[in-house]
Amino acid sequence: MKQIRQMAGKLRREDIQSHVKLKGWVQKRRDLGGLIFIDLRDRSGIVQVVFNPKTSEKALEIAEKVRSEFVVEIDGEVVERDGSTVNPKMETGEIEILATRLAILNKSKTPPFQIEGETDVAEDLRLKYRYIDLRREPMQNTFKLRHQTTQVIRNFLNEEEYLEMETPMLTKSTPEGARDYLVPSRVHPGEFYALPQSPQLFKQLLMVSGFEKYFQFARCFRDEDLRADRQPEFTQIDIETSFMTSEEIMAMTERMMKKVMEQVKGIDIETPFVRMGYDEAMERYGSDKPDTRFSMELVNVSEAVKASGFKVFSSAVESGGKVSALNVKGKASEYSRKDIDQLTEFVKIYGAKGLAWLKVESGELKGPIAKFLSDEEAGNLQSLLAAQDEDLLLFVADKTSVVHESLGALRLKLGKELKLIDETQFNFLWVTEWPLLEYDEELGRYFAAHHPFTMPVQEDMEKLETNPGEVKAEAYDLVLNGYELGGGSLRIYQREMQNKMFEVLGFSAEEAEEQFGFLLDALENGAPPHGGIALGFDRFIMLLAGRTNLRDTILFPKTASASDLLTEAPGSVSKTQLDELNLTVKDNKKD
Amino acid sequence: MKQIRQMAGKLRREDIQSHVKLKGWVQKRRDLGGLIFIDLRDRSGIVQVVFNPKTSEKALEIAEKVRSEFVVEIDGEVVERDGSTVNPKMETGEIEILATRLAILNKSKTPPFQIEGETDVAEDLRLKYRYIDLRREPMQNTFKLRHQTTQVIRNFLNEEEYLEMETPMLTKSTPEGARDYLVPSRVHPGEFYALPQSPQLFKQLLMVSGFEKYFQFARCFRDEDLRADRQPEFTQIDIETSFMTSEEIMAMTERMMKKVMEQVKGIDIETPFVRMGYDEAMERYGSDKPDTRFSMELVNVSEAVKASGFKVFSSAVESGGKVSALNVKGKASEYSRKDIDQLTEFVKIYGAKGLAWLKVESGELKGPIAKFLSDEEAGNLQSLLAAQDEDLLLFVADKTSVVHESLGALRLKLGKELKLIDETQFNFLWVTEWPLLEYDEELGRYFAAHHPFTMPVQEDMEKLETNPGEVKAEAYDLVLNGYELGGGSLRIYQREMQNKMFEVLGFSAEEAEEQFGFLLDALENGAPPHGGIALGFDRFIMLLAGRTNLRDTILFPKTASASDLLTEAPGSVSKTQLDELNLTVKDNKKD
Repeated sequence: MKQIRQMAGKLRREDIQSHVKLKGWVQKRRDLGGLIFIDLRDRSGIVQVVFNPKTSEKALEIAEKVRSEFVVEIDGEVVERDGSTVNPKMETGEIEILATRLAILNKSKTPPFQIEGETDVAEDLRLKYRYIDLRREPMQNTFKLRHQTTQVIRNFLNEEEYLEMETPMLTKSTPEGARDYLVPSRVHPGEFYALPQSPQLFKQLLMVSGFEKYFQFARCFRDEDLRADRQPEFTQIDIETSFMTSEEIMAMTERMMKKVMEQVKGIDIETPFVRMGYDEAMERYGSDKPDTRFSMELVNVSEAVKASGFKVFSSAVESGGKVSALNVKGKASEYSRKDIDQLTEFVKIYGAKGLAWLKVESGELKGPIAKFLSDEEAGNLQSLLAAQDEDLLLFVADKTSVVHESLGALRLKLGKELKLIDETQFNFLWVTEWPLLEYDEELGRYFAAHHPFTMPVQEDMEKLETNPGEVKAEAYDLVLNGYELGGGSLRIYQREMQNKMFEVLGFSAEEAEEQFGFLLDALENGAPPHGGIALGFDRFIMLLAGRTNLRDTILFPKTASASDLLTEAPGSVSKTQLDELNLTVKDNKKD
Repeated sequence: MKQIRQMAGKLRREDIQSHVKLKGWVQKRRDLGGLIFIDLRDRSGIVQVVFNPKTSEKALEIAEKVRSEFVVEIDGEVVERDGSTVNPKMETGEIEILATRLAILNKSKTPPFQIEGETDVAEDLRLKYRYIDLRREPMQNTFKLRHQTTQVIRNFLNEEEYLEMETPMLTKSTPEGARDYLVPSRVHPGEFYALPQSPQLFKQLLMVSGFEKYFQFARCFRDEDLRADRQPEFTQIDIETSFMTSEEIMAMTERMMKKVMEQVKGIDIETPFVRMGYDEAMERYGSDKPDTRFSMELVNVSEAVKASGFKVFSSAVESGGKVSALNVKGKASEYSRKDIDQLTEFVKIYGAKGLAWLKVESGELKGPIAKFLSDEEAGNLQSLLAAQDEDLLLFVADKTSVVHESLGALRLKLGKELKLIDETQFNFLWVTEWPLLEYDEELGRYFAAHHPFTMPVQEDMEKLETNPGEVKAEAYDLVLNGYELGGGSLRIYQREMQNKMFEVLGFSAEEAEEQFGFLLDALENGAPPHGGIALGFDRFIMLLAGRTNLRDTILFPKTASASDLLTEAPGSVSKTQLDELNLTVKDNKKD
């Protein structure tokens, strides 16, 4: 193929004396001593172009009309820069283009904000003019990285003989799980499709079809109230496979992650990843997605303080709760009483009633609760917490879930505040041995902790009837730097087991048949043992790109109210459209 | 990675004496002289397994319980078959497995239909039990081919530096084009998203963002009444690029197609593809997507018959229409008067009032209209149509559009009937020089022939105001074997031109701003010249796989009434769901 255009950002010293044709955007223009300098930007980067009356009067004349973000075409010669004007900060800084011709392909208004690197422009404005925001280098880089990661993963899965397959978007609404986005049917008035929350059932059916290894970059939808790290539509790397064990699926995922880290980040990560049971994760990190880039673990001190004179401690243990502590090493002096009061307010968000504290001074525990502790208790605490002079010890005593949640959150807050986190690390971790079910006190029934198709572990099968709350699942979550990257499980593949599961979840036989009849049928028509995993791709890209805002990893994201500020979706539709769908919008909510 | 399981279909003579572990489905079981034979099927193919009491009583005993489509695990040894039992039709036919162990992983009911090659089972039943239908070899092969084609295209575009990018599914409804699928918003009561008919505007915005080269396997949605070759959701290979000419985009597409044909079909196709103007395609093939695998072209004979005594001919020409003919070579004796009557009924479907005919016998034209033709007219006709003895000549005289449509359809019908088509050929063709606009007599306004963002050709710019109907578009359609694979165009990239286009289409400035304000804004904020193409991926796979039913290329397709017979989508939803969306379903249509 004849190369008729060169890429601005790729020109180097070797290209000196070449004649080039460039097309791109005017990053900026400077007029200096009768010359005009333009920084020309295209997808590959930036190069400096010089307009000189001696080379071309005409080009110089046109260059005078050029403004930022004009789209131009330039012919010219690559020349060496004077020693004094070499710019070592630019990749093309050793050369410049002496322009012989300039054409304006399209003009531009003054952009609503400057196209620079990182920016503090209000996000709403960036989203309204997303096509301009996306011109910024960090955004360009993020989406190039996203593309590259996609290809690495596809090539890996292709090599491992997974078939990329497309499941439907217009599917059936199911009541378990999050809220569905619905799509009214015109042909079947009063009926609705639902957009998929995940291709879960279809990928299971593909296993029943004998495809054995499936993957898809699947768009998924959840109509939930949005938090900073949620979007109404998101992409997951969706994988399902037949005849493999949990360990084999985890090992395959590790090979995939190793390849991504190697090819995208140039980092060699160690496999297998650490595996940690759910209970251990909660006990040690107060989180089911531990950030293991720093230690400062939760320490269970219940035994040491269960007979303590400090009633808050002893009664928490007595009533079936626990007392755990964090040792904030060497920071005793940095935290005043007032600072600790603020930490106390923080843990209250998570339901803790208070935050007890001690400081270690000259080998002794000091602080308001010290006087309630016997020497033996104090000694045991110091030893359990490996407490030394200048350490600050923070305690929560409460029911177990509150202790874990509040200290887990406090640990993360302090980790960030005290810069304990090595931001260059990528710590992958498997959390395993999940509970299969969660009991909802309010509704008085069990819910599936993951989804109702998850297999119980073999040894707990019998407990499903006697003590469902204690049954563990054949499930595994992949955690990266404290974020849940995704998770998977082996699935139930026998009809009787699936029936039993629906029973435990409070479905009548009719309800199960009505909603999941096709799955139940499939399970008794030659369903193989199968399982899989789904990884949140947007979040993975966020972590790989070192971003903190999920919206920076999605080309055209929605706001917290699920609006697209660029196209102004959602919007009103015509009466004809509603009539065709046999729908009316109620007025009452509009008031 | 330790290979703990072998693939059934890959075992060969070289594997004799190996111990293997196989997992898969029982294709069939035969009992013969105290032995049991099982054909074991997995994703890779089929192998024969023998259960022999001398090898394992236990395994034989379990094998007795096994039925078709049971899922089993087998340990055994690969052994040579006796000469007499070698099956040359099976790839694994030289060997069999002597089973030492058998485990039933899951049972199966008797399948609702047999899993065989091509099948004549009713499609509704196949769709209801799609997970069983997909086990058939032709289906497995189609989806393996689909996967492979996907990878070839991705690798090609990756090498040419296109970035794979994901555009939103929850977008804004726009009135131009087909009917949108709508998605009610819960957060904004009474407002709706629309599912994309194509990512057209987003890919244009990505060009304005400076990404320069974009692609996506994009899921698209159209709520139209379905024909055999339409689905409510479908996949297109969506490509957009900046700074390239139509010719460059077509050349890139040709490189891509060449690679697919080479790597997927092992066929070396010639490039560049034939390019044919729209007018020529209509004149010669009566179609804007000519099947060029056979000739039998339409021949315009208006000049030869305009003064004919046969009034049907002369008055058609006189009133601005035309007379064209097909020469059905050497088939005069095969078509009786009754046969020709049936062809006449066929062309009437397309609005033709009749079908005139002549046969050539001993160098003379014979037939009911022969007597109206002068010797000169007859001679001219024979020469124009290269008519020889035994040829059948078929004429339609009408307004031009009817002549083209009816003879174009008749040509295809006869091509199939007379087996004139070489089914092994893949004939790619570009149709270019499309009209930009189509006039709707009923509504009294112009509509965009492709979409309102298509660029007019440079030389017709001025006609946009004076004679819009004659303006040609910078557009190109890719045709394969008479199917429209897809099409593309250069896009309008300047606001004034886009304003003018909306004006011609009858939009007020306010309407244009209301619906496409964000695009108009983008065009005056540094939009580069850009264009692209979109190819129907499902249809492409249909042609590559040699299928005739589009539904055979989609894993879980919808029926003609847009239903999924497997999951029974669409379905009813709860009152709570409707209340949350602030919607009511009207009763009247249900009566």
